[in-house]
Amino acid sequence: MGALHEGHLSLVRNARDRCDRLVVSIFVNPSQFGPDEDFDDYPRELAKDMDLLQQEGVDVLFSPRRDQIYRDGHQTRVSLHQLTAPLCGLNRPDHFAGVTTIVAILLQIIQPNTVYLGRKDYQQFRIIERMVQDLFIPTEVVGLPTIRERDGLALSSRNANLSEQGRKRANSIIRGLQNAKDAFSNGTTSVDTLRNIIASEVKKRCDAVHYIAIVDKKTLQPIDNVNRPAVMAVAALIEGVRLIDNLEIEPIQ
Amino acid sequence: MGALHEGHLSLVRNARDRCDRLVVSIFVNPSQFGPDEDFDDYPRELAKDMDLLQQEGVDVLFSPRRDQIYRDGHQTRVSLHQLTAPLCGLNRPDHFAGVTTIVAILLQIIQPNTVYLGRKDYQQFRIIERMVQDLFIPTEVVGLPTIRERDGLALSSRNANLSEQGRKRANSIIRGLQNAKDAFSNGTTSVDTLRNIIASEVKKRCDAVHYIAIVDKKTLQPIDNVNRPAVMAVAALIEGVRLIDNLEIEPIQ
Repeated sequence: MGALHEGHLSLVRNARDRCDRLVVSIFVNPSQFGPDEDFDDYPRELAKDMDLLQQEGVDVLFSPRRDQIYRDGHQTRVSLHQLTAPLCGLNRPDHFAGVTTIVAILLQIIQPNTVYLGRKDYQQFRIIERMVQDLFIPTEVVGLPTIRERDGLALSSRNANLSEQGRKRANSIIRGLQNAKDAFSNGTTSVDTLRNIIASEVKKRCDAVHYIAIVDKKTLQPIDNVNRPAVMAVAALIEGVRLIDNLEIEPIQ
Repeated sequence: MGALHEGHLSLVRNARDRCDRLVVSIFVNPSQFGPDEDFDDYPRELAKDMDLLQQEGVDVLFSPRRDQIYRDGHQTRVSLHQLTAPLCGLNRPDHFAGVTTIVAILLQIIQPNTVYLGRKDYQQFRIIERMVQDLFIPTEVVGLPTIRERDGLALSSRNANLSEQGRKRANSIIRGLQNAKDAFSNGTTSVDTLRNIIASEVKKRCDAVHYIAIVDKKTLQPIDNVNRPAVMAVAALIEGVRLIDNLEIEPIQ
């Protein structure tokens, strides 16, 4: 969706190393924003983005107009009914159908061998991976690690909408997650206990918490005990800006 | 879905003339049948179908098992929300989401330049045409004319489930449609009048009528007067067998 930061550029560099032809799409997709969400306020910096992509040696920037994608009479939706229900699906009920529809369209237009996604949007990554598998879209889905500020805050275009004071509070999410990961490394596997560890940081410093969840990393279904690969995920509001982050954890076999 | 008849073979011959490589899919798709519909009774004649396709010079028959298409955890649906609502959508609410999902999957697996569909399933043809357009699937959609018995009955795999007596009554659908088309050619453009002409044949001879509709041929929305290209479509039951047929009509400009 543009307003590129080092997280996006890390995807670009990884893809640049591995691909003959590299296409980047920038499209602030209206159908994935709810009626009360920040579509109008979402940062848009196309001229700056173009410079950055040129410096990274991107071959093609695909930045269509809204009416070129959603043409007169458009009415087709691609949706998933399990992976989209928990986590961000609770607060953003139609969000992921908007995401899967636009990603299906972009994959059809661009026909890439491989698509590179960030794991910061973890649920989105798992949903797109599943959609590609279910529809037999001939594209490999690669999820790459989250890129962070020095204090650990996950890079996000939305961080630009935080005040200096809000920015300082924003690292509470990764601090909570990291504390839980440390506890897990030291033998704590109870999801209740790990959630409380995360909550004690996040609830203290964020204005509202949408969810703190520890779920199976593939199905995103709730678990009681981290006895399989899992992801710990948080969504919280600071100054009206919705921030998400996650860490994967996995028992040593 | 197999149980091939001359309607299917007409598609095959048209495609054979126009294409270098010709793939036919046969898959009785469970997700397009409702819970009380005829999935179990749908005719299946794969060995005979293979012979017929070999005689026609088909290059590849793609006939996957159900669990090869709908794999563990499958949850993705492709759906349209306008074209699917009227006509057959009234009696078969989830039917077309099953159709569009399987067709999207088949197009991804086979990646054809062109897909050939019959116009007997007129609504299905328009829905698939729209889906391909909306998702930018790089396939051309071609709809070919309905093939008929000598008495006009549209060929359908389901005709095999009619008794001799039911078979005789089944041509009332095309007779009603043809009478209306003749009236239209003679200047009748009122949809009410044309529908009554169709109904007087169909209601007399069929066991139940699901719909008799005259709609815009692209949007499938109701019209009062045939002042634009339209389609007259009927669905009716004979001996529990659901039969559909249609004729296109168009004002002379």
